[in-house]
Amino acid sequence: MCRWNAYYGQPLLIEALLFNMDHSLIDQSLHSRMGVETTNGDGFGIGWYAGSTGRPCRYRSVGPAWSDVNLRELAAHVESPIFLAHIRATTGTPVQQTNCHPFRHENWLFVHNGVLNDFHKIRRELVMAVDPVYFDDIAGSTDSETLFYLALTFGLENDPLGAMERAVGFVEHTARAHGIEHPVQMTVGISNGERLWAIRYASEGTPRTLFVSEDVSALKALHPESEQLQKLGDEDRAIVSEPLGDRLPGAWVEIPPSTALIVQPGPDEQRSFQPRVPDAVVG
Amino acid sequence: MCRWNAYYGQPLLIEALLFNMDHSLIDQSLHSRMGVETTNGDGFGIGWYAGSTGRPCRYRSVGPAWSDVNLRELAAHVESPIFLAHIRATTGTPVQQTNCHPFRHENWLFVHNGVLNDFHKIRRELVMAVDPVYFDDIAGSTDSETLFYLALTFGLENDPLGAMERAVGFVEHTARAHGIEHPVQMTVGISNGERLWAIRYASEGTPRTLFVSEDVSALKALHPESEQLQKLGDEDRAIVSEPLGDRLPGAWVEIPPSTALIVQPGPDEQRSFQPRVPDAVVG
Amino acid sequence: MCRWNAYYGQPLLIEALLFNMDHSLIDQSLHSRMGVETTNGDGFGIGWYAGSTGRPCRYRSVGPAWSDVNLRELAAHVESPIFLAHIRATTGTPVQQTNCHPFRHENWLFVHNGVLNDFHKIRRELVMAVDPVYFDDIAGSTDSETLFYLALTFGLENDPLGAMERAVGFVEHTARAHGIEHPVQMTVGISNGERLWAIRYASEGTPRTLFVSEDVSALKALHPESEQLQKLGDEDRAIVSEPLGDRLPGAWVEIPPSTALIVQPGPDEQRSFQPRVPDAVVG
Amino acid sequence: MCRWNAYYGQPLLIEALLFNMDHSLIDQSLHSRMGVETTNGDGFGIGWYAGSTGRPCRYRSVGPAWSDVNLRELAAHVESPIFLAHIRATTGTPVQQTNCHPFRHENWLFVHNGVLNDFHKIRRELVMAVDPVYFDDIAGSTDSETLFYLALTFGLENDPLGAMERAVGFVEHTARAHGIEHPVQMTVGISNGERLWAIRYASEGTPRTLFVSEDVSALKALHPESEQLQKLGDEDRAIVSEPLGDRLPGAWVEIPPSTALIVQPGPDEQRSFQPRVPDAVVG
Repeated sequence: MCRWNAYYGQPLLIEALLFNMDHSLIDQSLHSRMGVETTNGDGFGIGWYAGSTGRPCRYRSVGPAWSDVNLRELAAHVESPIFLAHIRATTGTPVQQTNCHPFRHENWLFVHNGVLNDFHKIRRELVMAVDPVYFDDIAGSTDSETLFYLALTFGLENDPLGAMERAVGFVEHTARAHGIEHPVQMTVGISNGERLWAIRYASEGTPRTLFVSEDVSALKALHPESEQLQKLGDEDRAIVSEPLGDRLPGAWVEIPPSTALIVQPGPDEQRSFQPRVPDAVVG
Repeated sequence: MCRWNAYYGQPLLIEALLFNMDHSLIDQSLHSRMGVETTNGDGFGIGWYAGSTGRPCRYRSVGPAWSDVNLRELAAHVESPIFLAHIRATTGTPVQQTNCHPFRHENWLFVHNGVLNDFHKIRRELVMAVDPVYFDDIAGSTDSETLFYLALTFGLENDPLGAMERAVGFVEHTARAHGIEHPVQMTVGISNGERLWAIRYASEGTPRTLFVSEDVSALKALHPESEQLQKLGDEDRAIVSEPLGDRLPGAWVEIPPSTALIVQPGPDEQRSFQPRVPDAVVG
Repeated sequence: MCRWNAYYGQPLLIEALLFNMDHSLIDQSLHSRMGVETTNGDGFGIGWYAGSTGRPCRYRSVGPAWSDVNLRELAAHVESPIFLAHIRATTGTPVQQTNCHPFRHENWLFVHNGVLNDFHKIRRELVMAVDPVYFDDIAGSTDSETLFYLALTFGLENDPLGAMERAVGFVEHTARAHGIEHPVQMTVGISNGERLWAIRYASEGTPRTLFVSEDVSALKALHPESEQLQKLGDEDRAIVSEPLGDRLPGAWVEIPPSTALIVQPGPDEQRSFQPRVPDAVVG
Repeated sequence: MCRWNAYYGQPLLIEALLFNMDHSLIDQSLHSRMGVETTNGDGFGIGWYAGSTGRPCRYRSVGPAWSDVNLRELAAHVESPIFLAHIRATTGTPVQQTNCHPFRHENWLFVHNGVLNDFHKIRRELVMAVDPVYFDDIAGSTDSETLFYLALTFGLENDPLGAMERAVGFVEHTARAHGIEHPVQMTVGISNGERLWAIRYASEGTPRTLFVSEDVSALKALHPESEQLQKLGDEDRAIVSEPLGDRLPGAWVEIPPSTALIVQPGPDEQRSFQPRVPDAVVG
């Protein structure tokens, strides 16, 4: 059922966030505290933006993150201004590389923690609703990837939050027609290499947890020994499924349910996230 | 682009066919002679029937067959009256366990050597034509698996050859509507634990090769040192993409193009294989 | 840091023990309760005896046991009178197939839960003490495999318990010369296809847990729905790192520290296990 | 039995050498022309120097190089002034990540194409000759890795070529004492992040092939469409097991047998490579 982290700001060595924390994402692959599953060992992935191409680089593997030597190496050598990392606990679909996040389309990256409830009952309808122009890009079989392609169908590249509202609304509409309760449970992270969006939402009840780093002085105070963290400034943000340690709880601010956070140059924005059924439902 | 072997007869140790031949299937994973690709290292799988359940056991892996220690072990210990083995060379879809053959549904196993040409152009239409009751069983993304589920849709469980004729006819019909030439290239192996079907067909030109073992004395003469082979009788058959050695070329009889072979208790049958567009095309 | 199960008795479908229990070994790969680590996802292996060859078949993989589809398949189809299964949590050596248990030599299988403390300090000495005739059989880099080859060196094939006492005595002697405290922590399972040995020992303090099934009526009462378990008799035994469920705690009897259990036709034996430094230390 | 490439010069995108050539190293993983094996699908690895740490980053995997999506990604995004890449065909030792090249110690990288003949007969002696201070760093079981640690033992960090002469001399001495003919077959690539050494040698007969790029205008002419190659200058070198294409054969100059090439700022050097038994053989 997953955990994810995202970073946005000045270039940061990936390991500074992914490994060198009290309760890092890699630690959470073995023992998460707030997730539905304590173990998230069904694969992982990182996507990062660097260089002038705009296209993000991606590394995904089916093995558990905690034992992946290559991940440790890359994290120790790759510096990036924007990256998303995800550790997977499957909700039923196969453990394979194409089912690991982040999913990618052009310069877009997407990670998801949560589930589309009873996905197997509506999988065909949802997949058929994906714009045919994207169909052959669907490489795996997860609910998460399907949600991503629905968002692309509903205009992600032009209006990420609106597209997600329409995609989630479509899923809820379809699910409820099948008598499925609590259709959508999610936190989602999205980037296009320019901004970072984070969404926290559930059709009913409490969504999966999601936190954003408070002002940077708290993050620095967490690990004074880390040169990497010491150079961070007020513009730099980390978004995490669960706090990366117990000390300084004030370092992490919970993102409220039904809320989207936009991280960008200058002030960030928080907006209400309200799924709605799309006007013209593509089918 | 694959190679496959099938066996039907009295219980035989899998390694007798898969490994202990001059030019075994495992050898062909490294150096095939008649395939489009000489290397077939994009995964493999074996499915075998044993015991009273009727459900076949299956072992699939993404690594090359030639280096798989577990395959060597299993083949040395598993005896079976019916088994299908396949080594994969991808025609474009990802290398993952769910894209390895044999594909399975209940007690049915399916292997394919060949390609549905320009599959990415018609993938959505073909997948949408699969009966919704099977949709969520589709685990991978290959043309081969899609062909299998189309065959199930068109009645494989009741009439395997008729269903394959309808499935291939449907694919050709769809492909030609998209201007795709040479839509189908195939040899296919199918079993339900009672019979074994082998089909050799191409929409145009020469299909991939397929051979059946001549009378058993030739097979025995190939390897007099093999206790396992020495016990074979006239009812026992091997079907192979390419001969398992150069010696005794008479040991292998080519199955003609547009032909299906039914291996069963008593005499085998050969029938013409004629794809036709299904009367009611499910869509 | 591992967990293991062994079975000895009339042929039993492997899944009856490995999967179809309240808190099966596979469940323990995700969430063990008594182990040092709660997650044991650094690989697994099963070895089983069947057929007339005497050589055990072995299946090992680096992925976590809980997500291995092939394991699920094999366990559902393989029946065996003696098998050992192991799930791994590394104590520092690489996650690779050659570091998964069971280790094997001829018809001997060996599984270990525990650690040789500060192994890296004495690895060279221990490896050099292995009889040269076995040296090139050492395929991995674990303390466990080294212990196995030391046991072979000290006569495992003729006198398993005596050989283990000498091997452990040698390790303790070497370790203490290097100032290493608590040198050996272990439960070990061994079989040659005729008997099953289980040993529980620690140089100091409490050894890892180990249980043997009480009389078979308790095991049957655990799962009345299981046809496989219902056919078990008084000669049949399961040995487990931790109980396979909470219900009927009397179903599992703890093997005392410094004790070896011999499971064989007729009455089992329990003996004291007393490591001693070998008379002639090979070096 | 392997192939390898190395690059030394101004920062170059790894894919410019590894992928975007007529007959690239990745192509050679499927179909090499000059190697003992045509298929090199038993794993691969790349090591590259970048940044100020001096420590090289390394990515190794057991799967074939031709199908590794992560390799394709990294190669398209990583630019480096010095890198070594290797594709493996095992000569008998297990296929596992710790048996993939390059091997690494501190800032040193090492790749090898060839074999230490009958290695299993002398493995124990060679391993025991490795300086104990390095012993626990030996992670795998290959002849190649053992040769690397012998070179470290004989002073690689101070005098790479002298150390290799002593290491090879020691292997030949040990092998001949066991009656082994043709003990060493090799091309070797070594770097410390400042220089690049390439050695071509065989105890008897013709060594494995090894080529260095001729002047850079030939390399540029090979692929005028490649922006990456067009920016190369006279100081930039590629060293390859076999030419990366048939066109412009003058682009590749064969390194003679028993020769070492030193690539460094300013003129390169070629030296005779003469193995000798070390004065004080460490045992």
